[in-house]
Amino acid sequence: MTVSDGTGKPRPEIRGDILFDQIRTLALTGTDPLGGRTRLTLTEEDRQARNLLVKWMRELDLDVRVDCFGNIFGILEGKDVEKDSLMIGSHIDTVIHAGPYDGCYGVLSGLAVARAFREAGCIPGRPLVVAAFTNEEGVRFQPDMLGSLAFVGGITADEALSVKDDGGITVGEALSRIGYSGKEEPGFLIPSEYIELHVEQGPRLDAEKIRIGVVEGVQGISWWRVSITGKANHAGTTPTNMRHDAGYAAARVSVFLRDLAVTTGTTLATIGTISFEPGAVNVIPSKAVFTVDLRDPDSTRLTEAEEKLAEFLQKAAGEEGVKISSEHLVRFDPVVFDRGLAGEVEKAALSRGLSSMRMVSGAGHDAQMMARVCRAAMIFVPSVGGISHNPDEHTPEEDLAAGAGVLLDVVLKLVGFSFKEK
Amino acid sequence: MTVSDGTGKPRPEIRGDILFDQIRTLALTGTDPLGGRTRLTLTEEDRQARNLLVKWMRELDLDVRVDCFGNIFGILEGKDVEKDSLMIGSHIDTVIHAGPYDGCYGVLSGLAVARAFREAGCIPGRPLVVAAFTNEEGVRFQPDMLGSLAFVGGITADEALSVKDDGGITVGEALSRIGYSGKEEPGFLIPSEYIELHVEQGPRLDAEKIRIGVVEGVQGISWWRVSITGKANHAGTTPTNMRHDAGYAAARVSVFLRDLAVTTGTTLATIGTISFEPGAVNVIPSKAVFTVDLRDPDSTRLTEAEEKLAEFLQKAAGEEGVKISSEHLVRFDPVVFDRGLAGEVEKAALSRGLSSMRMVSGAGHDAQMMARVCRAAMIFVPSVGGISHNPDEHTPEEDLAAGAGVLLDVVLKLVGFSFKEK
Repeated sequence: MTVSDGTGKPRPEIRGDILFDQIRTLALTGTDPLGGRTRLTLTEEDRQARNLLVKWMRELDLDVRVDCFGNIFGILEGKDVEKDSLMIGSHIDTVIHAGPYDGCYGVLSGLAVARAFREAGCIPGRPLVVAAFTNEEGVRFQPDMLGSLAFVGGITADEALSVKDDGGITVGEALSRIGYSGKEEPGFLIPSEYIELHVEQGPRLDAEKIRIGVVEGVQGISWWRVSITGKANHAGTTPTNMRHDAGYAAARVSVFLRDLAVTTGTTLATIGTISFEPGAVNVIPSKAVFTVDLRDPDSTRLTEAEEKLAEFLQKAAGEEGVKISSEHLVRFDPVVFDRGLAGEVEKAALSRGLSSMRMVSGAGHDAQMMARVCRAAMIFVPSVGGISHNPDEHTPEEDLAAGAGVLLDVVLKLVGFSFKEK
Repeated sequence: MTVSDGTGKPRPEIRGDILFDQIRTLALTGTDPLGGRTRLTLTEEDRQARNLLVKWMRELDLDVRVDCFGNIFGILEGKDVEKDSLMIGSHIDTVIHAGPYDGCYGVLSGLAVARAFREAGCIPGRPLVVAAFTNEEGVRFQPDMLGSLAFVGGITADEALSVKDDGGITVGEALSRIGYSGKEEPGFLIPSEYIELHVEQGPRLDAEKIRIGVVEGVQGISWWRVSITGKANHAGTTPTNMRHDAGYAAARVSVFLRDLAVTTGTTLATIGTISFEPGAVNVIPSKAVFTVDLRDPDSTRLTEAEEKLAEFLQKAAGEEGVKISSEHLVRFDPVVFDRGLAGEVEKAALSRGLSSMRMVSGAGHDAQMMARVCRAAMIFVPSVGGISHNPDEHTPEEDLAAGAGVLLDVVLKLVGFSFKEK
């Protein structure tokens, strides 16, 4: 369906039916027996998905380019594309036993935008690029977001290509095996803007019945492994005041972290793993080892949370007579997206009569890598129940269409469009 | 050394040198490479230790009897022993990688008391029995204290003999294999009093520098397995107020239990095991399963602790939006020992100039089974640092001697003694 913009000519509009169909078709690549799909990056399943994507790009007469990391780019009206383009991107690799939308929705919505131009018979004021980045999920190769990280020069080509999977196969070898070791140089095509449309992977939009998430940035992440060493003793003979209970000290840290999260209102804190030694019903734990996942959209507050955790660990160690050591596993600074682009997303949602809210992404996305080299934005749509990385991941079609519509409107606003002379 | 009692004849006295030597010798049976000993009940190592004990009993000219559970009894002056005797007992089986004293000290001190009579050339007013019970530790066969439990009729002979170890071997078969399936009927020899001398297996006497523990009873024990079911969600995208964190709910239970223990002053509470699912750094735990070990010397207070735990579980479930279920694994009511005998122990310590304190045993002992059928008492001596079930278990010889001396004095007081006519 196309609508007029008052000039009498049809304005570009998203073809929801084709978008939904492509999402369903792509989701059938790499399906597993339990109703999910497992399309780890640079595997045979990923190759099939890439071939499908490239075929669809060519059907839209996009100029398909592949770089040395296997990142795929489909260019619409590519004149002087290196100088000033707008990129719409995400990824089509998945985790193990994944849902249908994560990443794919963003890439296929990029195709839907290109299709809107094609079907309306008009051309963008500046080149449009639809991108699919390699190894966003990071299941097979670490770190995650490797393709976009390497694309923006955050890691050298040699480093990126020599990363090995558990079987000792490098990224470079895996690319060659599936025929996606492309000719383009790293960062051959730095756009002026990058926009990524994605399902939220969290419950907020769904819970608050908001249609569009205007993503202001990506949280900072700080992962720790904490080891508490107390003293194993008989549970029946050791008076409470003579205990050095590593497990109890760990519990206090958990309760402290919840209080910290509630007090700040922005920091998220999670203890996702824990183990006790010796691990007997009637023995006071001599050792507790657990991980802490701290997140905050603000760099200063994240640092404060880390400092408060460190202070509390020291306090708890003294009070329980245990030793506590902690090891920093991961630290990513928060990323702030472009304010101007976020404003455009918000305006586009309003124009379409869609409720929206400002939010920060808790998960990592290729957009945070692209934000290093250009203005970047993300648009979120609701995910029912916040379910993510799971075959039960679900977003209703009307929400998928709404998000793609907002994406299109922002693109139209930013690049403008004109009709081809006939 | 013997001392006179004013009649000009030597009063019976403990030969510390022989007691210490027998403890060391017995501790060499079933030694393991890491400096401990592993003498699981009814194994070849246990057979060697039993043979040694029987040899030492015969050297003292005790009448050795073995019952159908392999419990060993050495009788001094056995006339009418079935009518009115005093039994001194404990066990010589060990846990894996054990120390030298647990159990053995009590049995060998019984021999030391018998030796004191022999060497002084006097006879007890009533028969004395030195007992070593089968499978006190409960490592190979469950329940622990099986020999004394069966002896007092707490379990039928058939039930006791058909208990299997992990390899499918029954108690009855294991007894036959090592030649300790005796002829005596269960409870063939119910004494009037039972006294057990034992190392504390806890830190209180050592910490408070008290020489003798006057044991008033054995704590009640209540073991639970608690399962908390929350909801797995992304650690980075799930707001704190929308979490159903099974791990956090478990931590709250741990903190609650510590508060409960501190508030009551008598209840002990321990979470010794815990596991999370799915167990990933960046996933909120959907499941936490942990054990709770509750103990109190008072039956009413133990029940109260159980009730308060149940109330708290319900409260925590409601507040975090998780489901909590709990399963009762073990429940032993508290045991109260004979007040009169405890008074005799206290007086004997005082007479020897030894500091003493009233206390409750946190660990289980054969004495609690014997308390079902006769007046029972326990005497504790300090264990350095409270270390137990570990090769580092240690009690200085002066404390071993002091405990055996108190045991002797209580025996002399209860049974009286006279000198043989020459």
